[in-house]
Amino acid sequence: MPTTDLIFPTMPPISGVALGTTNAGIKQTTRDDLLLISIAKNGVCAGVFTQNAFCAAPVQIAKANLAKQPRWLCINSGNANAGTGSRGTAAAQQCCQKVGQLMGGEACQVLPFSTGVIGEDLPDDKIIKALPAAKANLHEDNWLSAATAIMTTDTAAKGASRTVQIGTDSITINGIAKGSGMVHPNMATLLAFIATDAKISQPLLQQALSAAVAQSFNLITIDGDTSTNDACVLLASQSAQAEIASDEDYAIFVAALGDICCQLARLVVQDGEGASKLIRIQVGGAASDAEAVLVGKTIANSPLVKTAFFASDPNWGRILAAIGRAEISNLDISKVSIYLDNICVLKNGAKSPKYTEQQGQKVMGQNDITLAVNLGRGSYSQQILSCDLSFDYVRINSEYRS
Amino acid sequence: MPTTDLIFPTMPPISGVALGTTNAGIKQTTRDDLLLISIAKNGVCAGVFTQNAFCAAPVQIAKANLAKQPRWLCINSGNANAGTGSRGTAAAQQCCQKVGQLMGGEACQVLPFSTGVIGEDLPDDKIIKALPAAKANLHEDNWLSAATAIMTTDTAAKGASRTVQIGTDSITINGIAKGSGMVHPNMATLLAFIATDAKISQPLLQQALSAAVAQSFNLITIDGDTSTNDACVLLASQSAQAEIASDEDYAIFVAALGDICCQLARLVVQDGEGASKLIRIQVGGAASDAEAVLVGKTIANSPLVKTAFFASDPNWGRILAAIGRAEISNLDISKVSIYLDNICVLKNGAKSPKYTEQQGQKVMGQNDITLAVNLGRGSYSQQILSCDLSFDYVRINSEYRS
Repeated sequence: MPTTDLIFPTMPPISGVALGTTNAGIKQTTRDDLLLISIAKNGVCAGVFTQNAFCAAPVQIAKANLAKQPRWLCINSGNANAGTGSRGTAAAQQCCQKVGQLMGGEACQVLPFSTGVIGEDLPDDKIIKALPAAKANLHEDNWLSAATAIMTTDTAAKGASRTVQIGTDSITINGIAKGSGMVHPNMATLLAFIATDAKISQPLLQQALSAAVAQSFNLITIDGDTSTNDACVLLASQSAQAEIASDEDYAIFVAALGDICCQLARLVVQDGEGASKLIRIQVGGAASDAEAVLVGKTIANSPLVKTAFFASDPNWGRILAAIGRAEISNLDISKVSIYLDNICVLKNGAKSPKYTEQQGQKVMGQNDITLAVNLGRGSYSQQILSCDLSFDYVRINSEYRS
Repeated sequence: MPTTDLIFPTMPPISGVALGTTNAGIKQTTRDDLLLISIAKNGVCAGVFTQNAFCAAPVQIAKANLAKQPRWLCINSGNANAGTGSRGTAAAQQCCQKVGQLMGGEACQVLPFSTGVIGEDLPDDKIIKALPAAKANLHEDNWLSAATAIMTTDTAAKGASRTVQIGTDSITINGIAKGSGMVHPNMATLLAFIATDAKISQPLLQQALSAAVAQSFNLITIDGDTSTNDACVLLASQSAQAEIASDEDYAIFVAALGDICCQLARLVVQDGEGASKLIRIQVGGAASDAEAVLVGKTIANSPLVKTAFFASDPNWGRILAAIGRAEISNLDISKVSIYLDNICVLKNGAKSPKYTEQQGQKVMGQNDITLAVNLGRGSYSQQILSCDLSFDYVRINSEYRS
């Protein structure tokens, strides 16, 4: 979905956070595939990680090291180091060891991350050999190369930046993310890195990140497949004058962070594998948030709904069938309504008398569509972002390893 | 998946069960799209129906009429009469009324069924007009035309037949079914009709059907989308000499019925929309049947796993990721194994040392593949039948209404 939204924004440097990339030759031979991030000595880190039981070796190590005042992140694309057993753990540890040695710290101060194909041994020798070059490239102004180095099937680098006023000073938050298949985040999405220069305690930083992720990355889905390598990390370098301590300042910080997470999440969906359309599924009138999310994700992941969107076919019967199988107990279908943008398609469980196929067709032709469902049983609502299922999704995922 | 399995078998007549088809011009102009089934006066019926909350109007009526000693089934393809509100209910009732009138019975003795596009008004006038022709064609030897008349995107008519010895006599069971998208049956599958000449009480017949469906239709999935119109009906004309009364005879009957249901279910998957491969997912070592089914269906419905099968790519990392997100609590990944046919791919959570890509490639090239997963946590096992996700699935479902 090549839209202007996918143009990389201006990302000001974050004082105290440096990024260095290089080509380690893991899968790519021309594009950088290794990213080293260093954070100022008194900086703090927060993180959320995949709930997939086959959580990758680097994710397991990163989870453990998060409590040990991490100073460096070592990220590779082209290999996920998942399903690799004890050899995978050893390989990730080797990389951490080398980063610690090179940067004058401990292996346990390194958070490792990997993304790419599952089940192949990580070529840690290649990464270790390339680390000095990544170190030599460390600069605070390297956000675009960083976002590019973590890409796999992504067609564009994804970033978002916000600068907000805290008292008399200002702070900046930068974030980068990558998709673009196996995207159905559960507690995090496949590799998003966010940094701020704000002064903020680690517990507060973790609280802010968890809240922001719940309302952004955890509400998107491309194919319903939760990755083994999902992780979202937030670094605070403490370099700015401004400190996030009062409730008021925390609210400003969380709003800006939430904004960044939502923008990155949307970019991941817009650049979803083979995606030609962004679908905003708004489920209202639900008895709980969880119910709204369940109905939204059931619609979002229905292959029949997805192919109808791809075909610009207002085949709303498929939407109705997806709602009906969402396992909502005692759903009264005579209270359910469906809207495509502002066009009412289904009213009280049956086709709206005023609805014409032409009206539906017009909305379905757009590349940004809002599908609103009202369940008529409560006051909760949630929005799920998703995309269509195209020939290109099948092509990309049939060719991925060839 | 055009295989020899899809060749329609010889189906002997079932005494007391007559089938008549005709073209009502609902969507097809050349192929028959209306099927009338009549059952002998003392015959009994059992049925299982979709759990989709947007259960179609005809299904609702069929459920209600099942208890009223039904004598006739009226089935159309080309229109599902779902999401049609009170107009849909009235249209289905009109058809029942006409069948009753024509056949010398009551409207409540008719079970109506519809399959096709959701959300469009049922052209009951066309059906009513065509019913006399269907009646004129009623014959006991019409199983192939019946199986053909209920097809939608199916590429072949699907049938199965068994004759078994009960005491000194024999009974026959015939079944027909149709798919072939929106297939993820929950208590039944999209239109399967089975008939037997056996003497058997209604409660016993219902018990046998429910048991057989749980182990056949409810263990298949093509796209994870449960239809609004799923129904499986079993008719017993009581015409044979043999009576199913003893435990021993019931066991013989249920075995033959289960066999028919499994064969029809497999045919539905093999003729799944765009399917090029039959995937038999055997999950063993589970702590319960439900857990085995959950893991099996999560793998079966993963678009990434499905596209890997389509591409003949032994990308077992995607299988591992699907197992990991299946929400099995406390899964110990170091006990999980994966086999492609008899090739061990994953052993104790990591790639088997003996496994080579070439071995996996060879299995993936077949059009009938067994994927066995052992969870290493119990003694329960279940098999899910599924298929791959191909360009043709996207094409068929993008073009469905055009």
